[in-house]
Amino acid sequence: MPDDDGHPSPDEMSLLTVLNALSDPLRYAVVSELLREPAGTARTCASFNLPVSKSTTTHHFRILREAGLVRQVDRGNSRAATLRRTDLDLRFPGLLGLIDADR
Amino acid sequence: MPDDDGHPSPDEMSLLTVLNALSDPLRYAVVSELLREPAGTARTCASFNLPVSKSTTTHHFRILREAGLVRQVDRGNSRAATLRRTDLDLRFPGLLGLIDADR
Repeated sequence: MPDDDGHPSPDEMSLLTVLNALSDPLRYAVVSELLREPAGTARTCASFNLPVSKSTTTHHFRILREAGLVRQVDRGNSRAATLRRTDLDLRFPGLLGLIDADR
Repeated sequence: MPDDDGHPSPDEMSLLTVLNALSDPLRYAVVSELLREPAGTARTCASFNLPVSKSTTTHHFRILREAGLVRQVDRGNSRAATLRRTDLDLRFPGLLGLIDADR
């Protein structure tokens, strides 16, 4: 079962759900940006400056979180997201490499 | 430029477009089924028995074709689809392996 924040464990992740999460250009851009950061970097949702409302941004991060692509951590009055590199490399070897090669 | 049948060349393929094509469960199932066939196998669209109308089936195959996932070939009064394994392995190494591992 996903944890209280909706993070699935690696064996709960589904490739179709991950592909679906990545198939939106804004969500793809978030993952691609996080991949360019040093591993473990936590970025607030606002820092991505997505050209959509705050509630739509929240929606996109929920999709990413529930698919297993990002982990969201509370930071006082905002939330930050980190890319789940190790888990993703374990569960879907090569997936992040495809995105990394696509620049 | 894609050819007259809308098949992009490998360098015209976009990862985001491919992910989008794969993010639908029926289209994902078509690619997954073709992966289980011997390389080069051509299957008619009807042979997949998708639980949707003929026109929706045609739509799904158009999305797959325009993304570069399948090549459609005319066969008299029907069309058959083959998976573009070589082109996909060249352009997105590891992508088909992810789908193949997901059974």
